Amino acid sequence: MASNSFGTIFKITTWGESHGKAIGVVIDGCPAGLELSIEDIQEELIRRSPGKNPYTSPRNEKDHAEIFSGVFEGRTTGAPISIILFNQDADSSKYEPIKNLLRPGHANYTYLEKYGIFDYRGGGRASARETACRVAAGAVAKKLLRYFGVDMAAYIQEIGGIAINHIEEPNLEALKEKTVSSAIFCPEMQKENLMLTKIEEVKKEGDSLGGIVEVRTSPLPVGFGDPIYEKLEANMAKAMLSLPASKGFEIGLGFQSAKVKGSMHNDLFSKDSEDRIFTKTNSCGGTLGGISTGAPLIFRVAFKPASSIYKPQETLSLQKEESVFRLPEGSRHDPCVAIRAVPVVESMAALVLADALLMNRVSKL
Amino acid sequence: MASNSFGTIFKITTWGESHGKAIGVVIDGCPAGLELSIEDIQEELIRRSPGKNPYTSPRNEKDHAEIFSGVFEGRTTGAPISIILFNQDADSSKYEPIKNLLRPGHANYTYLEKYGIFDYRGGGRASARETACRVAAGAVAKKLLRYFGVDMAAYIQEIGGIAINHIEEPNLEALKEKTVSSAIFCPEMQKENLMLTKIEEVKKEGDSLGGIVEVRTSPLPVGFGDPIYEKLEANMAKAMLSLPASKGFEIGLGFQSAKVKGSMHNDLFSKDSEDRIFTKTNSCGGTLGGISTGAPLIFRVAFKPASSIYKPQETLSLQKEESVFRLPEGSRHDPCVAIRAVPVVESMAALVLADALLMNRVSKL
Amino acid sequence: MASNSFGTIFKITTWGESHGKAIGVVIDGCPAGLELSIEDIQEELIRRSPGKNPYTSPRNEKDHAEIFSGVFEGRTTGAPISIILFNQDADSSKYEPIKNLLRPGHANYTYLEKYGIFDYRGGGRASARETACRVAAGAVAKKLLRYFGVDMAAYIQEIGGIAINHIEEPNLEALKEKTVSSAIFCPEMQKENLMLTKIEEVKKEGDSLGGIVEVRTSPLPVGFGDPIYEKLEANMAKAMLSLPASKGFEIGLGFQSAKVKGSMHNDLFSKDSEDRIFTKTNSCGGTLGGISTGAPLIFRVAFKPASSIYKPQETLSLQKEESVFRLPEGSRHDPCVAIRAVPVVESMAALVLADALLMNRVSKL
Amino acid sequence: MASNSFGTIFKITTWGESHGKAIGVVIDGCPAGLELSIEDIQEELIRRSPGKNPYTSPRNEKDHAEIFSGVFEGRTTGAPISIILFNQDADSSKYEPIKNLLRPGHANYTYLEKYGIFDYRGGGRASARETACRVAAGAVAKKLLRYFGVDMAAYIQEIGGIAINHIEEPNLEALKEKTVSSAIFCPEMQKENLMLTKIEEVKKEGDSLGGIVEVRTSPLPVGFGDPIYEKLEANMAKAMLSLPASKGFEIGLGFQSAKVKGSMHNDLFSKDSEDRIFTKTNSCGGTLGGISTGAPLIFRVAFKPASSIYKPQETLSLQKEESVFRLPEGSRHDPCVAIRAVPVVESMAALVLADALLMNRVSKL
Repeated sequence: MASNSFGTIFKITTWGESHGKAIGVVIDGCPAGLELSIEDIQEELIRRSPGKNPYTSPRNEKDHAEIFSGVFEGRTTGAPISIILFNQDADSSKYEPIKNLLRPGHANYTYLEKYGIFDYRGGGRASARETACRVAAGAVAKKLLRYFGVDMAAYIQEIGGIAINHIEEPNLEALKEKTVSSAIFCPEMQKENLMLTKIEEVKKEGDSLGGIVEVRTSPLPVGFGDPIYEKLEANMAKAMLSLPASKGFEIGLGFQSAKVKGSMHNDLFSKDSEDRIFTKTNSCGGTLGGISTGAPLIFRVAFKPASSIYKPQETLSLQKEESVFRLPEGSRHDPCVAIRAVPVVESMAALVLADALLMNRVSKL
Repeated sequence: MASNSFGTIFKITTWGESHGKAIGVVIDGCPAGLELSIEDIQEELIRRSPGKNPYTSPRNEKDHAEIFSGVFEGRTTGAPISIILFNQDADSSKYEPIKNLLRPGHANYTYLEKYGIFDYRGGGRASARETACRVAAGAVAKKLLRYFGVDMAAYIQEIGGIAINHIEEPNLEALKEKTVSSAIFCPEMQKENLMLTKIEEVKKEGDSLGGIVEVRTSPLPVGFGDPIYEKLEANMAKAMLSLPASKGFEIGLGFQSAKVKGSMHNDLFSKDSEDRIFTKTNSCGGTLGGISTGAPLIFRVAFKPASSIYKPQETLSLQKEESVFRLPEGSRHDPCVAIRAVPVVESMAALVLADALLMNRVSKL
Repeated sequence: MASNSFGTIFKITTWGESHGKAIGVVIDGCPAGLELSIEDIQEELIRRSPGKNPYTSPRNEKDHAEIFSGVFEGRTTGAPISIILFNQDADSSKYEPIKNLLRPGHANYTYLEKYGIFDYRGGGRASARETACRVAAGAVAKKLLRYFGVDMAAYIQEIGGIAINHIEEPNLEALKEKTVSSAIFCPEMQKENLMLTKIEEVKKEGDSLGGIVEVRTSPLPVGFGDPIYEKLEANMAKAMLSLPASKGFEIGLGFQSAKVKGSMHNDLFSKDSEDRIFTKTNSCGGTLGGISTGAPLIFRVAFKPASSIYKPQETLSLQKEESVFRLPEGSRHDPCVAIRAVPVVESMAALVLADALLMNRVSKL
Repeated sequence: MASNSFGTIFKITTWGESHGKAIGVVIDGCPAGLELSIEDIQEELIRRSPGKNPYTSPRNEKDHAEIFSGVFEGRTTGAPISIILFNQDADSSKYEPIKNLLRPGHANYTYLEKYGIFDYRGGGRASARETACRVAAGAVAKKLLRYFGVDMAAYIQEIGGIAINHIEEPNLEALKEKTVSSAIFCPEMQKENLMLTKIEEVKKEGDSLGGIVEVRTSPLPVGFGDPIYEKLEANMAKAMLSLPASKGFEIGLGFQSAKVKGSMHNDLFSKDSEDRIFTKTNSCGGTLGGISTGAPLIFRVAFKPASSIYKPQETLSLQKEESVFRLPEGSRHDPCVAIRAVPVVESMAALVLADALLMNRVSKL
């Protein structure tokens, strides 16, 4: 089943395995006339790139993207935009010793059962490397959104049980700056330090930690999202749960809303000095009936601790013999995947919003 | 934008407003040869039906479904199955007094801005009445799943902060029985009583409560779900966040997984006495790489407290005058929408699984 | 596989069998704000209705449509529009004698093999009765198109080898009038008479005739149709070949273009007195690169002679015994299905154009 | 609007412009386990390659494809298959002189109006170069079909008014051999010679010729194609009309069926010595109700004469000044595009059939 595409009007299709020649994304449906350069994409890829800080996987992916189509004289033409990232670190020999083992917490067992074949090198198609393509595509979506005045920030909200304080009335620019200046995308320096200590500790144990990523957008125009099955939060939830290692999504008060009363949860309508309608609070996280209210969209995504840990783990071989799984020396290992997920979450959010923006053009006569 | 369809191979399209002549669903893509009768559908609708217990909305919807196509001599023919529910309680006069007010926590504001028009009668298309169509379609999906040995149970896991105990190694049949025998779909009688007391209390205040619904399936065949953007949990998350009032989705340990270490989270592979592979734990909730592992699928959905409460709330009129919103006497009011959501959650889960089952038929040669 | 939907943004889903309780269509994606009444739909259904003239099937279908959703206070709301046509002539007893026979030229053999089941009553889902739903939906598409200044006419171009003369520079209104005033939708009275004589002759033989339907639109805005796989003529061809009994589609010179030289075929660009670009000829039929040029769209659809004829035909029973197929007395029989196809072709054309119009809204920034 | 994908389960997405760095295709949904090598693809590309004979465009495209993903140890893995063809003849300077002119019969006018931008180099995205990607993808589809015993042949049926004789009861292998041994894919040597003379003549005039391509498959399994809107011939028609320069599609007797009577057109059912059902004739071209009957599929596609001719043609500049369009020396020019279209038509047919084959897996329980 064709399952490597995302989006309806602004649609992406990704391809490529962790240790193949390259990975890539085709963006189909981007409106013509948008200024776009390779720097727009490279900038986002660098943010995602591991090696940027010592708390993500130490390998150097040197994500180097090229635009192969769809841009002419600095602008999108309406034709599909093909972006390719050539793999440079494609030595897969280190995966030889584990190629016959079921990897705990990994997808090789399920792929093998489903397809009868598995490209074991670096996780193949199931590798998080695929998310680089989402980031490249997200860079284009972000450009489109910014053209229409929509911006956003993703950041670490919690790692290993340490959470930042609630952000009241944030200035989005300030929030973005704080996030960018943090090695782990954490906008609160004090909590960042606690998180770093915890990560170091776990790293020494050869173990890993989970985390939560939060996203805030600028106030959206009213009308993004379509009713019933294409609700803005429904597509956002799908986008987020399509990410490797993600285990949960919540919008507004999310799971907390299960604990409160309606009189507290309802966001009351009011008007500002220029007679514009707004809601006094934003418990709902920015949508009603699946359609944006004009408030910022606010949601969170939970990530499990990385499955790849240095601690030996009991497992089976493909031949069903009891075995011990040990991560090969020098193989990729993030003590906390939530950190690397931050720019990916932001990219997926941008893809959902760009699609919703375009879909909203056909709602009225 | 066409947004009233859900699913790829097993696809539903719903239509109708709360106070129109009827609502309905067209199921397209159900394989031919499945035994299907109106009783299969009616049974599920009765479960959903309000008025079944005093803790859901007291109106009597008398959901009476008719199959209009796609079934011949007791079996599906491969043609689209059209199911129609005629509305019987279509007196919309009581909505007259509030038709010019923005309803706090409701979608009339966002629909009006998006479409420039709103069918205010009973919430129109945005009404939870649409979920009856999901239940009718879900009944067909469940029949298909049971034919292939897949079953499931949804139940109340938490209401207003009162949660049931963790269910270890459940017998699915026993769990279903306990759930059915509860007026609020709560499988733990002691907690049910606490919840009921809490609901009564809040009802007296004219207020409402949120809640959490949990779903457990029988052990799924390995291979449901497709990689990358059609992961089983991604489609499940979309399905759940497409429900009215839902605010969060988590699978396995979900948000809790953000707080634990990888060595604790990873589900280790083992084999049983018949040499079949299984995982000793199920922290992941039944999928790896978006594909079912063979374990039961376990996930939770958070619901906000109902927006419709009897307490008066400040709001604006469509003319932007400050006003007070009061729920009309005799209008629909659920003190806890999570209860009514239980069979709907189950139905949406069935739709996702039926689609995944069929999609999995084309994964290999 | 879900196969009963057509369109991307303006999408229809049809359901129902020839002798079920009803047939219907759900239109999803029609923009909000369009004036729409049941008369708009009824008018188109009457045009299609057999019994209007003696040259189509004599049964009286009395297509009576009802709008069940999506319209409020005379305007579309953006919600799905459900239109239902209740079947009145549902006596299926006359099909009993032939239920065990393979019908020559019909689909019961292929349905049986594909699905293992067949609703034999009146052709079930394979009946041309389904096209009434296309006409109902087409009526809505036409309303949308007319709002944006797009109109069209379909008419008989050839029956049983008798063709009308080439229409040079038609006045679309005049063409529509001539077509409407003809019992067989033929805009040329002299040829109409020849056709009628031929039809009578063949009818007496208990046989049937094929025919060709032509469509001309008003000059379209430049830009309808998307490149590569969503070319305007590609979607039009699919629409037309999805019709029962259609065997061919050609645009502009069509198959004739295979016989001419490029210097004759190319339509040269020129400008009118108001400096607007146009092509001096329209050999291409109104598109270049799959995108409308601003000229009228002109295409033709070939229909085979009706498979249902009164002449006895050799066939097999389901048990593979040699048998003779005789059309039951009183069963539906069109001597020339191309005639009834005229309004259906027009409706499908309208659906394609409405979708193209909306899709074109997202081509540029 | 995303418009560069084709297919539902077996889905392709193409990208790239005539004079960009490369063009490519992503095949998503090919079942795992299919043997596939670059030679399978290269072989088909060579067939399409111009320069193979003097009657197609003389440039040397040297289509050299590389598989970038989706194949591991010689077999498809279920992951998307990315195939890239690097452009070697990317000197676009010769297009400079005509970049400000509307090209007669070409798409630069419609692209400019639709998108406000056009990559004029070699026709950009509108170039027939894109069809190389269809051929590459078609090679994979053909491999899949052959695995299930389905084969096909496309060949020239008519050029410039010269048609081959009707092929009765062809041996598909013999037909393929004759076609391959012809410089212009014409299976009838006598007619080939007449065609070649005609092409030479027109070439000298600096003009071009249209033509018709016919396709015959091996007897298909009964059941390919889905009812109503996904009829096999509907998807085939869309596929064919999505090809550059195609103007018509007909199946079976096609437009000729409009001239005959039903008693002649109906294909009567019979059984062979092994009690298998077949139709004595195949007027319908292999489908009933949009579903394959078990007979070979037979259809034709009409191609207009190439728009690029050496004869000067009147036109306008982008500034609407009257101008003369002259094809730049050394630019691509096919005297008859129908010849080069033959392998492309075959590839598109394979894509439609591969998709239909997979879709048919979900029709029954």
